Amino acid sequence: MITSTANQKVKRILKLQKKAKARNEEGVFLVEGIRMMREAPEDRIKELYVSESFLQKNPDMPEALKGRAETVSDPVFAHMSDTRTPQGILGVIKRSSCVMEELFAGETVPFLMVLDHVQDPGNLGTILRTAEGAGVTGVILGGDCADLYQPKVIRSTMGSIYRMRTVCVDHTIEAVRVLKAHGIHTYAAHLDDSHFYDEEDYRQPTAFLIGNEGNGLPEEICAEAEHKIKIPMHGQVESLNAAMAAGILMYEACRQRRK
Amino acid sequence: MITSTANQKVKRILKLQKKAKARNEEGVFLVEGIRMMREAPEDRIKELYVSESFLQKNPDMPEALKGRAETVSDPVFAHMSDTRTPQGILGVIKRSSCVMEELFAGETVPFLMVLDHVQDPGNLGTILRTAEGAGVTGVILGGDCADLYQPKVIRSTMGSIYRMRTVCVDHTIEAVRVLKAHGIHTYAAHLDDSHFYDEEDYRQPTAFLIGNEGNGLPEEICAEAEHKIKIPMHGQVESLNAAMAAGILMYEACRQRRK
Repeated sequence: MITSTANQKVKRILKLQKKAKARNEEGVFLVEGIRMMREAPEDRIKELYVSESFLQKNPDMPEALKGRAETVSDPVFAHMSDTRTPQGILGVIKRSSCVMEELFAGETVPFLMVLDHVQDPGNLGTILRTAEGAGVTGVILGGDCADLYQPKVIRSTMGSIYRMRTVCVDHTIEAVRVLKAHGIHTYAAHLDDSHFYDEEDYRQPTAFLIGNEGNGLPEEICAEAEHKIKIPMHGQVESLNAAMAAGILMYEACRQRRK
Repeated sequence: MITSTANQKVKRILKLQKKAKARNEEGVFLVEGIRMMREAPEDRIKELYVSESFLQKNPDMPEALKGRAETVSDPVFAHMSDTRTPQGILGVIKRSSCVMEELFAGETVPFLMVLDHVQDPGNLGTILRTAEGAGVTGVILGGDCADLYQPKVIRSTMGSIYRMRTVCVDHTIEAVRVLKAHGIHTYAAHLDDSHFYDEEDYRQPTAFLIGNEGNGLPEEICAEAEHKIKIPMHGQVESLNAAMAAGILMYEACRQRRK
């Protein structure tokens, strides 16, 4: 059992919690909690840590997990954890990598989200979770998005991080050009001079472009998109939350595709 | 200028930041930031505080606000503020109160949200913001919802807190009964045995019922609702984020009402 915060493994986990660079170098991310660990594909679990009291409280832990878990004393586990009230189980998970073409090649009717400069971790995670629910086939993250593999994003995905195919690109605008070249219709969420979002037909190959929380999409990206669409707003609301806008668009496409 | 954290006014603001009870007793809430202050209805601003550097950087501050602002030294303002990087302007705002009947009396086609035990402040604020955008006429908060007037909720509403009519009730189920007695159709967001949400007609007087983030709506409340509706989900998603589910329902009603 690990009982010291000076243990090298503990130090490494702390580094993986806090440093995007360390996570990127190893090609991993961390997950916490029994629910997130249960959903983890077995072949992607690189390491597993459980607290002493977790082990006592969960004697029925799946054997496959139990066999590979390393036990950590409760105080040391609290030190390793990113949460205030740790559940006592933490895994190091291998990322799955793919290239942009894999997000639409082989899909009958591709359905993509392109995020540019989405900065709030909660928004990013919620978009992934909702995307899986709406039947999105892949998510493209443009240069300045928040780090997809930080603990808060992982938590907000509620498991979709394991399943939703994602690609990070340096320049959103180039991704938009690639999508167009592959016959995917691109729709930029915009506030002015636009059609209402529910006046378009999303039963074709579709990609929605979502911009930054405060500033929306840059004009050059909007100009590159085939269509601009707008979610109408009553009252004095200037814009919707970015994840909310993304969700409303995704579920409108999902609704149309069920008809 | 206030230069000491021992100042009685500073102590009172801190209490209002931290204690729901203090806010309730005075019937007020606090807002921070120039954007939130600009949107505040003038007759509801009870007090206004600005930091020294805010005043220097904003000589063009509206006269109406300037005249009533009390200046506070920067360190003391940082102490009063709920945010890590305070903008330097903070107001004490009077709540507007209404009773449940006001949420639908006088509305041609009432459109209500009923929230039961929604606990996450960000979700609550986002629901209010989206509700205003979707044309909701009022929001009912059942007994165990997060405190509507805490700083994080206020921030997430992006100003809708001033405009969206809300009523807090002790028992959600009784509110549902009142709505039904007034001919308002009640739809409980549910995960099983339900119609898809887009198979119903929301151009009638409509109320959506949204439950807790982890547990959804209690069975007794679902049973009291006239209809159960479900948002279909692809993949292995078990549920959507509560605010997201609320937003998708509200914008489906909004879409139908525009046709």
